Amino acid sequence: MDTKQQIHGLRPILEAIESGEEISKIYFLKEGNGVLFNQLKFAAKKAGIGTSFVPEEKLYKLTKENHQGAVAVLSPISYSNLEEVLEEANLEENPQFLLLDGVTDVGNYGAIIRTAECTGVAAIIVSEKGSAPINGVVVKTSAGAVFNIPICKVNHLKDAIYLMQAYGIQTMGASEKAEKSIYQTDLNIPLALVMGSEDRGINPSTLKILDQTFSLPMLGKIASLNVSVACGAMLYEAVRQRQS
Amino acid sequence: MDTKQQIHGLRPILEAIESGEEISKIYFLKEGNGVLFNQLKFAAKKAGIGTSFVPEEKLYKLTKENHQGAVAVLSPISYSNLEEVLEEANLEENPQFLLLDGVTDVGNYGAIIRTAECTGVAAIIVSEKGSAPINGVVVKTSAGAVFNIPICKVNHLKDAIYLMQAYGIQTMGASEKAEKSIYQTDLNIPLALVMGSEDRGINPSTLKILDQTFSLPMLGKIASLNVSVACGAMLYEAVRQRQS
Repeated sequence: MDTKQQIHGLRPILEAIESGEEISKIYFLKEGNGVLFNQLKFAAKKAGIGTSFVPEEKLYKLTKENHQGAVAVLSPISYSNLEEVLEEANLEENPQFLLLDGVTDVGNYGAIIRTAECTGVAAIIVSEKGSAPINGVVVKTSAGAVFNIPICKVNHLKDAIYLMQAYGIQTMGASEKAEKSIYQTDLNIPLALVMGSEDRGINPSTLKILDQTFSLPMLGKIASLNVSVACGAMLYEAVRQRQS
Repeated sequence: MDTKQQIHGLRPILEAIESGEEISKIYFLKEGNGVLFNQLKFAAKKAGIGTSFVPEEKLYKLTKENHQGAVAVLSPISYSNLEEVLEEANLEENPQFLLLDGVTDVGNYGAIIRTAECTGVAAIIVSEKGSAPINGVVVKTSAGAVFNIPICKVNHLKDAIYLMQAYGIQTMGASEKAEKSIYQTDLNIPLALVMGSEDRGINPSTLKILDQTFSLPMLGKIASLNVSVACGAMLYEAVRQRQS
Protein backbone atom coordinates (compact mmCIF):
# COMPACT_ATOMS: atom_id res chain seq x y z
CA MET A 1 0.00 0.00 0.00
CA ASP A 2 1.23 3.47 -0.88
CA THR A 3 2.33 5.19 2.34
CA LYS A 4 0.79 8.45 1.11
CA GLN A 5 -2.61 6.80 1.44
CA GLN A 6 -2.24 6.26 5.16
CA ILE A 7 -1.31 7.94 8.41
CA HIS A 8 0.30 6.18 11.36
CA GLY A 9 0.63 7.17 14.97
CA LEU A 10 -1.99 8.24 17.50
CA ARG A 11 -1.44 12.01 17.50
CA PRO A 12 -1.16 12.39 13.68
CA ILE A 13 -4.38 10.43 13.17
CA LEU A 14 -6.19 12.49 15.81
CA GLU A 15 -5.06 15.67 14.08
CA ALA A 16 -6.16 14.29 10.71
CA ILE A 17 -9.65 13.61 12.10
CA GLU A 18 -9.82 17.08 13.61
CA SER A 19 -8.77 18.72 10.35
CA GLY A 20 -11.48 16.82 8.48
CA GLU A 21 -9.14 14.57 6.47
CA GLU A 22 -11.01 11.80 4.59
CA ILE A 23 -10.25 8.61 6.51
CA SER A 24 -11.91 5.45 5.30
CA LYS A 25 -10.78 3.18 8.14
CA ILE A 26 -8.54 3.05 11.22
CA TYR A 27 -6.76 -0.15 12.20
CA PHE A 28 -6.12 -0.35 15.94
CA LEU A 29 -3.76 -2.75 17.67
CA LYS A 30 -5.94 -5.34 19.40
CA GLU A 31 -3.99 -5.02 22.65
CA GLY A 32 -3.70 -1.22 22.41
CA ASN A 33 -4.38 0.98 25.45
CA GLY A 34 -3.47 4.28 27.08
CA VAL A 35 -5.11 7.71 27.30
CA LEU A 36 -4.31 8.87 23.77
CA PHE A 37 -5.25 5.48 22.32
CA ASN A 38 -8.68 5.65 23.96
CA GLN A 39 -9.06 9.28 22.97
CA LEU A 40 -8.46 8.32 19.33
CA LYS A 41 -10.92 5.40 19.56
CA PHE A 42 -13.53 7.84 20.88
CA ALA A 43 -12.78 10.46 18.20
CA ALA A 44 -13.01 7.82 15.45
CA LYS A 45 -16.36 6.61 16.77
CA LYS A 46 -17.67 10.17 17.00
CA ALA A 47 -16.59 10.92 13.45
CA GLY A 48 -18.28 7.76 12.20
CA ILE A 49 -15.03 6.28 10.90
CA GLY A 50 -14.94 2.49 10.54
CA THR A 51 -12.46 0.75 12.85
CA SER A 52 -10.90 -2.68 13.05
CA PHE A 53 -8.94 -4.21 15.93
CA VAL A 54 -6.12 -6.31 14.58
CA PRO A 55 -2.99 -8.18 15.71
CA GLU A 56 0.50 -6.65 15.46
CA GLU A 57 1.29 -8.52 12.19
CA LYS A 58 -1.57 -6.83 10.36
CA LEU A 59 -0.40 -3.34 11.41
CA TYR A 60 3.14 -4.28 10.41
CA LYS A 61 1.86 -5.17 6.94
CA LEU A 62 0.33 -1.70 6.64
CA THR A 63 3.40 0.17 7.80
CA LYS A 64 6.99 -0.49 8.84
CA GLU A 65 7.02 2.84 10.73
CA ASN A 66 6.35 3.33 14.43
CA HIS A 67 2.56 3.20 14.38
CA GLN A 68 1.95 3.45 18.17
CA GLY A 69 -0.96 1.03 17.79
CA ALA A 70 -2.97 2.73 15.04
CA VAL A 71 -2.86 3.13 11.26
CA ALA A 72 -5.45 5.21 9.38
CA VAL A 73 -6.17 4.44 5.74
CA LEU A 74 -7.10 7.55 3.81
CA SER A 75 -10.04 7.65 1.43
CA PRO A 76 -9.02 7.32 -2.24
CA ILE A 77 -11.41 10.14 -3.18
CA SER A 78 -12.11 13.59 -1.85
CA TYR A 79 -15.73 14.19 -1.08
CA SER A 80 -17.71 17.06 -2.55
CA ASN A 81 -19.71 19.59 -0.59
CA LEU A 82 -23.45 19.10 -1.12
CA GLU A 83 -24.32 22.79 -0.88
CA GLU A 84 -21.72 23.65 -3.50
CA VAL A 85 -22.95 20.85 -5.74
CA LEU A 86 -26.53 22.15 -5.45
CA GLU A 87 -25.43 25.74 -6.05
CA GLU A 88 -23.70 24.70 -9.25
CA ALA A 89 -26.50 22.42 -10.50
CA ASN A 90 -28.70 23.70 -13.33
CA LEU A 91 -32.18 22.72 -12.19
CA GLU A 92 -33.61 23.45 -15.63
CA GLU A 93 -31.71 20.44 -16.92
CA ASN A 94 -33.59 18.20 -14.48
CA PRO A 95 -30.52 16.84 -12.70
CA GLN A 96 -30.83 13.60 -10.77
CA PHE A 97 -29.28 12.93 -7.41
CA LEU A 98 -28.89 9.64 -5.61
CA LEU A 99 -29.07 9.37 -1.80
CA LEU A 100 -27.89 6.18 -0.12
CA ASP A 101 -29.58 5.48 3.20
CA GLY A 102 -27.13 3.00 4.72
CA VAL A 103 -25.83 0.81 1.89
CA THR A 104 -23.23 -1.20 3.80
CA ASP A 105 -22.02 -3.80 1.31
CA VAL A 106 -18.96 -2.51 -0.57
CA GLY A 107 -19.80 -4.58 -3.66
CA ASN A 108 -23.27 -3.03 -3.86
CA TYR A 109 -21.83 0.41 -3.16
CA GLY A 110 -19.37 0.11 -6.05
CA ALA A 111 -22.02 -1.23 -8.45
CA ILE A 112 -24.36 1.63 -7.52
CA ILE A 113 -21.68 4.29 -8.09
CA ARG A 114 -20.94 2.66 -11.46
CA THR A 115 -24.63 2.66 -12.42
CA ALA A 116 -25.05 6.28 -11.29
CA GLU A 117 -22.16 7.34 -13.50
CA CYS A 118 -23.60 5.43 -16.48
CA THR A 119 -27.04 7.01 -16.07
CA GLY A 120 -25.82 10.59 -15.72
CA VAL A 121 -26.53 11.09 -12.01
CA ALA A 122 -25.25 14.54 -10.94
CA ALA A 123 -24.03 13.51 -7.47
CA ILE A 124 -24.30 10.74 -4.87
CA ILE A 125 -25.05 11.66 -1.27
CA VAL A 126 -24.20 9.31 1.60
CA SER A 127 -24.51 9.72 5.33
CA GLU A 128 -21.38 9.91 7.49
CA LYS A 129 -22.49 7.01 9.65
CA GLY A 130 -23.64 3.56 8.65
CA SER A 131 -22.35 3.74 5.10
CA ALA A 132 -19.72 1.55 3.48
CA PRO A 133 -16.27 3.19 3.27
CA ILE A 134 -14.82 3.91 -0.16
CA ASN A 135 -12.04 1.35 -0.23
CA GLY A 136 -10.23 -0.68 -2.86
CA VAL A 137 -13.21 -3.00 -3.40
CA VAL A 138 -15.53 -0.04 -4.02
CA VAL A 139 -13.06 1.52 -6.46
CA LYS A 140 -12.77 -1.80 -8.30
CA THR A 141 -16.48 -2.72 -8.40
CA SER A 142 -17.30 0.84 -9.47
CA ALA A 143 -14.97 0.27 -12.47
CA GLY A 144 -13.30 3.54 -11.52
CA ALA A 145 -16.57 5.50 -11.59
CA VAL A 146 -15.83 6.82 -8.06
CA PHE A 147 -13.37 9.21 -9.68
CA ASN A 148 -15.91 10.51 -12.23
CA ILE A 149 -18.90 11.42 -10.09
CA PRO A 150 -19.16 13.82 -7.12
CA ILE A 151 -19.85 12.01 -3.85
CA CYS A 152 -21.04 14.08 -0.88
CA LYS A 153 -20.87 12.91 2.73
CA VAL A 154 -23.44 14.45 5.07
CA ASN A 155 -23.98 14.14 8.81
CA HIS A 156 -27.65 13.31 8.51
CA LEU A 157 -29.37 12.15 5.36
CA LYS A 158 -32.61 13.82 6.42
CA ASP A 159 -30.96 17.24 6.49
CA ALA A 160 -29.75 16.60 2.94
CA ILE A 161 -33.32 15.72 1.94
CA TYR A 162 -34.70 18.92 3.50
CA LEU A 163 -31.98 20.93 1.76
CA MET A 164 -32.75 19.40 -1.62
CA GLN A 165 -36.45 19.99 -1.10
CA ALA A 166 -35.66 23.65 -0.41
CA TYR A 167 -34.00 23.75 -3.82
CA GLY A 168 -37.19 22.45 -5.41
CA ILE A 169 -35.83 18.96 -6.02
CA GLN A 170 -38.44 16.19 -5.72
CA THR A 171 -37.28 13.54 -3.25
CA MET A 172 -38.50 10.02 -4.00
CA GLY A 173 -38.04 6.43 -2.99
CA ALA A 174 -39.47 2.97 -3.50
CA SER A 175 -41.96 1.64 -0.98
CA GLU A 176 -44.00 -1.55 -1.05
CA LYS A 177 -46.94 0.42 0.28
CA ALA A 178 -46.88 3.07 -2.47
CA GLU A 179 -50.08 3.33 -4.48
CA LYS A 180 -48.53 4.11 -7.86
CA SER A 181 -45.74 2.33 -9.66
CA ILE A 182 -42.52 3.95 -10.85
CA TYR A 183 -43.92 3.69 -14.37
CA GLN A 184 -46.76 6.03 -13.39
CA THR A 185 -44.32 8.54 -11.88
CA ASP A 186 -42.80 11.52 -13.69
CA LEU A 187 -39.03 11.20 -13.27
CA ASN A 188 -38.11 13.80 -15.87
CA ILE A 189 -37.83 16.52 -13.22
CA PRO A 190 -35.12 17.65 -10.75
CA LEU A 191 -35.03 14.43 -8.77
CA ALA A 192 -33.38 12.93 -5.68
CA LEU A 193 -33.78 9.16 -5.51
CA VAL A 194 -33.27 7.55 -2.10
CA MET A 195 -32.05 3.94 -1.92
CA GLY A 196 -32.34 2.02 1.37
CA SER A 197 -30.02 -0.46 3.03
CA GLU A 198 -29.72 -4.10 1.98
CA ASP A 199 -31.59 -5.52 4.94
CA ARG A 200 -34.30 -3.04 5.85
CA GLY A 201 -34.80 -0.74 2.85
CA ILE A 202 -35.36 2.98 3.39
CA ASN A 203 -35.60 3.97 7.05
CA PRO A 204 -39.33 4.52 7.83
CA SER A 205 -38.66 7.96 9.30
CA THR A 206 -36.81 8.93 6.11
CA LEU A 207 -39.58 7.50 3.92
CA LYS A 208 -42.07 9.71 5.75
CA ILE A 209 -40.44 12.98 4.69
CA LEU A 210 -40.09 12.10 0.98
CA ASP A 211 -42.20 14.03 -1.53
CA GLN A 212 -43.24 10.90 -3.39
CA THR A 213 -43.05 7.13 -3.10
CA PHE A 214 -43.61 4.55 -5.81
CA SER A 215 -43.48 0.79 -6.15
CA LEU A 216 -41.27 -1.28 -8.39
CA PRO A 217 -43.38 -4.18 -9.71
CA MET A 218 -42.53 -7.56 -8.19
CA LEU A 219 -43.92 -10.45 -10.22
CA GLY A 220 -42.42 -13.40 -8.32
CA LYS A 221 -42.56 -14.87 -4.84
CA ILE A 222 -39.26 -13.45 -3.56
CA ALA A 223 -40.37 -9.81 -3.92
CA SER A 224 -36.94 -8.45 -3.04
CA LEU A 225 -34.18 -7.32 -5.34
CA ASN A 226 -30.51 -6.74 -4.74
CA VAL A 227 -30.20 -3.01 -3.92
CA SER A 228 -27.84 -2.27 -6.81
CA VAL A 229 -30.15 -4.03 -9.28
CA ALA A 230 -33.19 -2.12 -7.96
CA CYS A 231 -31.21 1.12 -8.21
CA GLY A 232 -30.29 0.30 -11.82
CA ALA A 233 -33.89 -0.47 -12.78
CA MET A 234 -35.04 2.87 -11.31
CA LEU A 235 -32.25 5.03 -12.73
CA TYR A 236 -32.75 3.48 -16.17
CA GLU A 237 -36.47 4.23 -16.02
CA ALA A 238 -35.45 7.86 -15.46
CA VAL A 239 -33.11 7.64 -18.49
CA ARG A 240 -35.95 6.23 -20.60
CA GLN A 241 -38.32 9.03 -19.60
CA ARG A 242 -35.69 11.64 -20.40
CA GLN A 243 -35.03 10.18 -23.82
CA SER A 244 -38.65 9.71 -24.89
CA MET B 1 -22.25 -29.96 5.34
CA ASP B 2 -25.04 -32.49 4.95
CA THR B 3 -23.49 -35.75 3.75
CA LYS B 4 -26.46 -36.28 1.43
CA GLN B 5 -25.27 -33.26 -0.52
CA GLN B 6 -21.98 -34.85 -1.41
CA ILE B 7 -20.38 -38.01 -2.75
CA HIS B 8 -16.96 -39.25 -1.75
CA GLY B 9 -14.66 -41.77 -3.36
CA LEU B 10 -13.33 -42.00 -6.89
CA ARG B 11 -15.58 -44.74 -8.29
CA PRO B 12 -18.88 -43.39 -6.79
CA ILE B 13 -18.16 -39.90 -8.19
CA LEU B 14 -17.32 -41.32 -11.62
CA GLU B 15 -20.60 -43.23 -11.61
CA ALA B 16 -22.47 -40.11 -10.51
CA ILE B 17 -21.02 -38.17 -13.46
CA GLU B 18 -21.92 -40.97 -15.85
CA SER B 19 -25.50 -41.13 -14.58
CA GLY B 20 -25.90 -37.36 -15.05
CA GLU B 21 -26.08 -36.45 -11.34
CA GLU B 22 -25.93 -32.67 -10.75
CA ILE B 23 -22.45 -32.02 -9.36
CA SER B 24 -21.52 -28.43 -8.68
CA LYS B 25 -17.86 -29.02 -7.79
CA ILE B 26 -15.31 -31.74 -7.15
CA TYR B 27 -12.57 -31.26 -4.56
CA PHE B 28 -9.46 -33.27 -5.40
CA LEU B 29 -6.59 -34.02 -3.04
CA LYS B 30 -3.69 -31.84 -4.18
CA GLU B 31 -1.26 -34.76 -4.06
CA GLY B 32 -3.73 -37.24 -5.56
CA ASN B 33 -2.66 -39.65 -8.31
CA GLY B 34 -3.33 -43.06 -9.81
CA VAL B 35 -5.24 -44.33 -12.85
CA LEU B 36 -8.74 -43.91 -11.42
CA PHE B 37 -7.88 -40.49 -9.97
CA ASN B 38 -6.73 -39.24 -13.38
CA GLN B 39 -9.72 -40.85 -15.05
CA LEU B 40 -12.03 -38.92 -12.73
CA LYS B 41 -10.13 -35.67 -13.34
CA PHE B 42 -10.59 -36.20 -17.08
CA ALA B 43 -14.30 -37.08 -16.74
CA ALA B 44 -14.92 -33.97 -14.59
CA LYS B 45 -13.19 -31.77 -17.14
CA LYS B 46 -15.16 -33.33 -19.99
CA ALA B 47 -18.45 -32.80 -18.13
CA GLY B 48 -17.56 -29.16 -17.45
CA ILE B 49 -17.63 -29.64 -13.68
CA GLY B 50 -15.64 -27.13 -11.64
CA THR B 51 -12.70 -28.62 -9.75
CA SER B 52 -10.44 -27.51 -6.93
CA PHE B 53 -7.19 -29.08 -5.76
CA VAL B 54 -6.95 -28.87 -1.98
CA PRO B 55 -4.86 -30.16 0.94
CA GLU B 56 -5.93 -33.17 3.04
CA GLU B 57 -7.39 -30.95 5.84
CA LYS B 58 -9.93 -29.40 3.48
CA LEU B 59 -11.19 -32.80 2.30
CA TYR B 60 -11.34 -33.96 5.91
CA LYS B 61 -13.58 -30.97 6.69
CA LEU B 62 -15.94 -32.09 3.92
CA THR B 63 -16.09 -35.72 4.97
CA LYS B 64 -14.80 -38.01 7.71
CA GLU B 65 -15.30 -41.03 5.41
CA ASN B 66 -12.65 -42.62 3.21
CA HIS B 67 -12.69 -40.18 0.32
CA GLN B 68 -9.82 -41.72 -1.73
CA GLY B 69 -8.73 -38.21 -2.69
CA ALA B 70 -11.99 -36.76 -4.06
CA VAL B 71 -15.23 -35.32 -2.71
CA ALA B 72 -18.02 -34.16 -5.02
CA VAL B 73 -20.48 -31.52 -3.85
CA LEU B 74 -23.92 -32.01 -5.35
CA SER B 75 -25.91 -29.14 -6.79
CA PRO B 76 -28.62 -27.83 -4.42
CA ILE B 77 -31.11 -27.67 -7.29
CA SER B 78 -32.17 -30.03 -10.02
CA TYR B 79 -32.00 -28.55 -13.46
CA SER B 80 -34.96 -28.41 -15.81
CA ASN B 81 -35.01 -29.70 -19.37
CA LEU B 82 -35.19 -26.84 -21.89
CA GLU B 83 -37.30 -28.75 -24.43
CA GLU B 84 -39.83 -29.65 -21.76
CA VAL B 85 -39.91 -26.04 -20.52
CA LEU B 86 -40.55 -24.80 -24.08
CA GLU B 87 -43.22 -27.45 -24.69
CA GLU B 88 -45.07 -26.33 -21.59
CA ALA B 89 -44.69 -22.59 -22.20
CA ASN B 90 -47.73 -20.69 -23.45
CA LEU B 91 -46.29 -18.46 -26.17
CA GLU B 92 -49.48 -16.41 -26.32
CA GLU B 93 -48.60 -15.07 -22.87
CA ASN B 94 -45.33 -13.66 -24.24
CA PRO B 95 -43.04 -15.56 -21.86
CA GLN B 96 -39.53 -14.26 -21.33
CA PHE B 97 -36.43 -16.38 -21.08
CA LEU B 98 -32.99 -15.42 -19.91
CA LEU B 99 -29.84 -16.95 -21.39
CA LEU B 100 -26.53 -16.49 -19.60
CA ASP B 101 -23.51 -16.59 -21.90
CA GLY B 102 -20.74 -17.29 -19.38
CA VAL B 103 -21.61 -15.35 -16.21
CA THR B 104 -18.82 -16.60 -13.95
CA ASP B 105 -19.16 -14.53 -10.76
CA VAL B 106 -21.38 -16.33 -8.24
CA GLY B 107 -22.56 -13.02 -6.72
CA ASN B 108 -23.74 -11.77 -10.11
CA TYR B 109 -25.27 -15.15 -10.90
CA GLY B 110 -27.32 -15.09 -7.69
CA ALA B 111 -28.43 -11.49 -8.20
CA ILE B 112 -29.49 -12.29 -11.78
CA ILE B 113 -31.53 -15.33 -10.70
CA ARG B 114 -33.19 -13.15 -8.03
CA THR B 115 -34.00 -10.43 -10.57
CA ALA B 116 -35.33 -12.97 -13.06
CA GLU B 117 -37.68 -14.36 -10.44
CA CYS B 118 -38.88 -10.86 -9.50
CA THR B 119 -39.58 -9.94 -13.13
CA GLY B 120 -41.48 -13.10 -13.99
CA VAL B 121 -38.88 -14.74 -16.25
CA ALA B 122 -40.15 -18.20 -17.30
CA ALA B 123 -36.75 -19.95 -17.20
CA ILE B 124 -33.02 -19.30 -17.10
CA ILE B 125 -30.76 -21.12 -19.55
CA VAL B 126 -27.04 -21.53 -18.86
CA SER B 127 -24.36 -23.38 -20.75
CA GLU B 128 -22.74 -26.45 -19.22
CA LYS B 129 -19.25 -24.98 -19.54
CA GLY B 130 -17.93 -21.63 -18.42
CA SER B 131 -20.83 -20.85 -16.09
CA ALA B 132 -20.70 -20.32 -12.34
CA PRO B 133 -21.81 -23.38 -10.32
CA ILE B 134 -24.93 -23.10 -8.21
CA ASN B 135 -23.38 -23.17 -4.76
CA GLY B 136 -24.17 -21.75 -1.33
CA VAL B 137 -23.23 -18.21 -2.37
CA VAL B 138 -25.57 -18.33 -5.37
CA VAL B 139 -28.41 -19.68 -3.21
CA LYS B 140 -27.82 -16.87 -0.69
CA THR B 141 -27.39 -13.98 -3.13
CA SER B 142 -30.43 -15.20 -5.05
CA ALA B 143 -32.41 -14.84 -1.79
CA GLY B 144 -33.65 -18.39 -2.39
CA ALA B 145 -34.96 -17.56 -5.89
CA VAL B 146 -32.97 -20.54 -7.31
CA PHE B 147 -35.68 -22.78 -5.87
CA ASN B 148 -38.53 -20.81 -7.51
CA ILE B 149 -37.46 -20.55 -11.13
CA PRO B 150 -36.60 -23.31 -13.63
CA ILE B 151 -32.91 -23.33 -14.59
CA CYS B 152 -31.86 -25.29 -17.66
CA LYS B 153 -28.30 -26.39 -18.40
CA VAL B 154 -27.47 -26.89 -22.05
CA ASN B 155 -24.33 -28.14 -23.79
CA HIS B 156 -24.12 -25.23 -26.17
CA LEU B 157 -25.94 -21.93 -25.75
CA LYS B 158 -26.17 -21.49 -29.53
CA ASP B 159 -28.18 -24.69 -29.87
CA ALA B 160 -30.57 -23.34 -27.23
CA ILE B 161 -30.88 -20.11 -29.24
CA TYR B 162 -31.65 -22.01 -32.46
CA LEU B 163 -34.20 -24.13 -30.60
CA MET B 164 -35.94 -21.08 -29.16
CA GLN B 165 -35.96 -19.41 -32.56
CA ALA B 166 -37.65 -22.52 -33.96
CA TYR B 167 -40.38 -21.98 -31.36
CA GLY B 168 -40.90 -18.43 -32.64
CA ILE B 169 -39.18 -16.80 -29.67
CA GLN B 170 -37.26 -13.60 -30.52
CA THR B 171 -33.68 -13.82 -29.30
CA MET B 172 -32.13 -10.51 -28.30
CA GLY B 173 -29.10 -9.02 -26.61
CA ALA B 174 -27.41 -5.74 -25.90
CA SER B 175 -24.64 -4.56 -28.20
CA GLU B 176 -22.76 -1.27 -28.25
CA LYS B 177 -22.98 -1.35 -32.04
CA ALA B 178 -26.77 -1.70 -32.17
CA GLU B 179 -28.60 1.06 -34.03
CA LYS B 180 -31.71 1.21 -31.87
CA SER B 181 -31.97 1.46 -28.11
CA ILE B 182 -33.84 -0.97 -25.89
CA TYR B 183 -36.50 1.74 -25.49
CA GLN B 184 -37.21 1.56 -29.23
CA THR B 185 -37.52 -2.24 -29.10
CA ASP B 186 -40.74 -4.18 -28.61
CA LEU B 187 -40.16 -6.50 -25.65
CA ASN B 188 -43.78 -7.48 -25.16
CA ILE B 189 -43.37 -10.61 -27.26
CA PRO B 190 -42.08 -14.15 -26.63
CA LEU B 191 -38.55 -13.14 -25.80
CA ALA B 192 -35.16 -14.67 -24.99
CA LEU B 193 -32.70 -12.15 -23.57
CA VAL B 194 -29.02 -13.08 -23.74
CA MET B 195 -26.63 -11.66 -21.12
CA GLY B 196 -22.88 -11.86 -21.71
CA SER B 197 -20.01 -12.51 -19.36
CA GLU B 198 -18.57 -9.92 -16.95
CA ASP B 199 -15.40 -9.30 -18.92
CA ARG B 200 -16.28 -9.63 -22.59
CA GLY B 201 -20.06 -9.33 -22.91
CA ILE B 202 -21.93 -11.56 -25.34
CA ASN B 203 -19.66 -13.78 -27.42
CA PRO B 204 -19.45 -12.20 -30.94
CA SER B 205 -20.38 -15.47 -32.62
CA THR B 206 -23.46 -15.70 -30.37
CA LEU B 207 -24.36 -12.06 -31.03
CA LYS B 208 -24.33 -12.78 -34.77
CA ILE B 209 -27.16 -15.33 -34.62
CA LEU B 210 -29.52 -13.22 -32.48
CA ASP B 211 -32.72 -11.93 -34.08
CA GLN B 212 -32.28 -8.42 -32.69
CA THR B 213 -29.71 -6.33 -30.85
CA PHE B 214 -30.26 -3.09 -29.00
CA SER B 215 -28.21 -0.63 -26.99
CA LEU B 216 -28.66 0.37 -23.37
CA PRO B 217 -27.96 4.13 -23.13
CA MET B 218 -24.65 4.99 -21.44
CA LEU B 219 -24.50 8.62 -20.36
CA GLY B 220 -21.17 8.64 -18.50
CA LYS B 221 -17.52 7.99 -19.28
CA ILE B 222 -17.32 4.46 -17.85
CA ALA B 223 -19.87 3.03 -20.31
CA SER B 224 -19.96 -0.34 -18.62
CA LEU B 225 -22.43 -1.67 -16.09
CA ASN B 226 -22.26 -4.58 -13.70
CA VAL B 227 -23.89 -7.49 -15.56
CA SER B 228 -26.60 -8.04 -12.93
CA VAL B 229 -27.49 -4.32 -12.95
CA ALA B 230 -27.67 -4.28 -16.78
CA CYS B 231 -29.83 -7.42 -16.67
CA GLY B 232 -32.16 -5.75 -14.14
CA ALA B 233 -32.50 -2.58 -16.23
CA MET B 234 -33.42 -4.67 -19.31
CA LEU B 235 -35.82 -7.07 -17.59
CA TYR B 236 -37.59 -4.15 -15.90
CA GLU B 237 -37.99 -2.40 -19.24
CA ALA B 238 -39.77 -5.57 -20.39
CA VAL B 239 -41.96 -5.43 -17.25
CA ARG B 240 -42.82 -1.78 -18.01
CA GLN B 241 -43.79 -2.56 -21.59
CA ARG B 242 -46.00 -5.43 -20.47
CA GLN B 243 -47.77 -3.30 -17.91
CA SER B 244 -48.36 -0.25 -20.10
